[in-house]
Amino acid sequence: MLTYETSFRVRYAETDQMGVVYHANYVVWMEIGRTEYCRNLGVVYRDLELNAGVGLAVAEVHCRYIAPARYDDLIVVETGIVSANARVVQFGYRIREETENRLLATGETKHVFCTKDMKPTKLPEEFRGYFGIAR
Amino acid sequence: MLTYETSFRVRYAETDQMGVVYHANYVVWMEIGRTEYCRNLGVVYRDLELNAGVGLAVAEVHCRYIAPARYDDLIVVETGIVSANARVVQFGYRIREETENRLLATGETKHVFCTKDMKPTKLPEEFRGYFGIAR
Amino acid sequence: MLTYETSFRVRYAETDQMGVVYHANYVVWMEIGRTEYCRNLGVVYRDLELNAGVGLAVAEVHCRYIAPARYDDLIVVETGIVSANARVVQFGYRIREETENRLLATGETKHVFCTKDMKPTKLPEEFRGYFGIAR
Amino acid sequence: MLTYETSFRVRYAETDQMGVVYHANYVVWMEIGRTEYCRNLGVVYRDLELNAGVGLAVAEVHCRYIAPARYDDLIVVETGIVSANARVVQFGYRIREETENRLLATGETKHVFCTKDMKPTKLPEEFRGYFGIAR
Repeated sequence: MLTYETSFRVRYAETDQMGVVYHANYVVWMEIGRTEYCRNLGVVYRDLELNAGVGLAVAEVHCRYIAPARYDDLIVVETGIVSANARVVQFGYRIREETENRLLATGETKHVFCTKDMKPTKLPEEFRGYFGIAR
Repeated sequence: MLTYETSFRVRYAETDQMGVVYHANYVVWMEIGRTEYCRNLGVVYRDLELNAGVGLAVAEVHCRYIAPARYDDLIVVETGIVSANARVVQFGYRIREETENRLLATGETKHVFCTKDMKPTKLPEEFRGYFGIAR
Repeated sequence: MLTYETSFRVRYAETDQMGVVYHANYVVWMEIGRTEYCRNLGVVYRDLELNAGVGLAVAEVHCRYIAPARYDDLIVVETGIVSANARVVQFGYRIREETENRLLATGETKHVFCTKDMKPTKLPEEFRGYFGIAR
Repeated sequence: MLTYETSFRVRYAETDQMGVVYHANYVVWMEIGRTEYCRNLGVVYRDLELNAGVGLAVAEVHCRYIAPARYDDLIVVETGIVSANARVVQFGYRIREETENRLLATGETKHVFCTKDMKPTKLPEEFRGYFGIAR
């Protein structure tokens, strides 16, 4: 599986009173991984929405938490496409702490291509190659 | 000043590793106070955006923090209009913890009425009375 | 399954540029459902952390999105315990929009009881009854 | 005024249904600017909390919004210290969009040095030089 890595530091805002990153933020981090994965493929997700009028509605999120992330940790999100067709695409993620190379979490998200008013649609043909979808 | 009170409990997600509510969340709480203040006046803010195509772009936020809020505290936001005209409205807020009646913060926000594409506009006449603006 | 319902309105802060609630917020909503479910059982989650020094580290989150939630929607989270033992508890959720009674999402979370320094522990006996765990 | 610049891209999670960045996120961005400013001075804020047991409680936030930020914009936060003594430090910020070099917002935050239980304290002497505070 082709993957792409993106990294950033944990924000203070992302911690909770347990002293670790609040778990819902990992779902935000997967979105960052997805955006940068697409950019690296040559698809600027913003343009997909603005120019082609196609969005990626989230249909399912799954995350397994292995070790806690802490404030100021350097996080790496490794993102890949698990499966894709003209209607549905599934991404997989591995979230690591960089300095000690600890695996923090793994996850998957499933998305449905949709129009601006949230109706399911097919990804326009010109974009399919980027996602490894045969025309 | 006519004020309206709305209340809710602190979410775990809103705390940070200092063990108190992360300060940016007070800005979100002011928005909740504003929405409920407007609803109480008879203006559903959602309808203002959807039907009249008018939004309230935030031009300025000011918040003074007096005492920390903690997870599960019952918060009361007291909201009022400080000043208003057809182009600009200013809200004031007092944020309290209910059980021990502690004052947590005070703040103000300034807003500019705007169109869907974020251009300044005047509030339509039919809504002015709600905000105490003379036609 | 014994369930408990809690409700609140969608915050403007929770929407995204697709015009619907950003998906990670459903994970926050599950936490609200969990807190209120526990409170209704007689366990104030804050006291569990503060007094007994026991927390609930999130081990897994799974959410299926069925229909989008929008700003100002009245949301109901129905929460129940799927399974529990002295080390692990699993919650299940149904998230609905109240006015039109639309099902928006379903989900589950798995938690491990942990000490303040995030080590796995067993739930103290005095709390087990609340979670339906045989001593 | 010595300033330090840090940059990052706008997250989808940070937008709202007006199609722009939700205003409370600028307050989070100021915190990122502050963290990186301190790191550049040689003070890792995490270590200040962990090792010296000193935190920076936020006493006041002020933000003026000039132009909206949008999803995927490259944001630059320019941070400097406006004034500092052993008890209080004030930071100033300019938030810009990098590509077209548009000024988006300016702001200030005021902080009180505090102990782990949120009592006001003096910054330990060894750290004062970093903040330009005479001993």
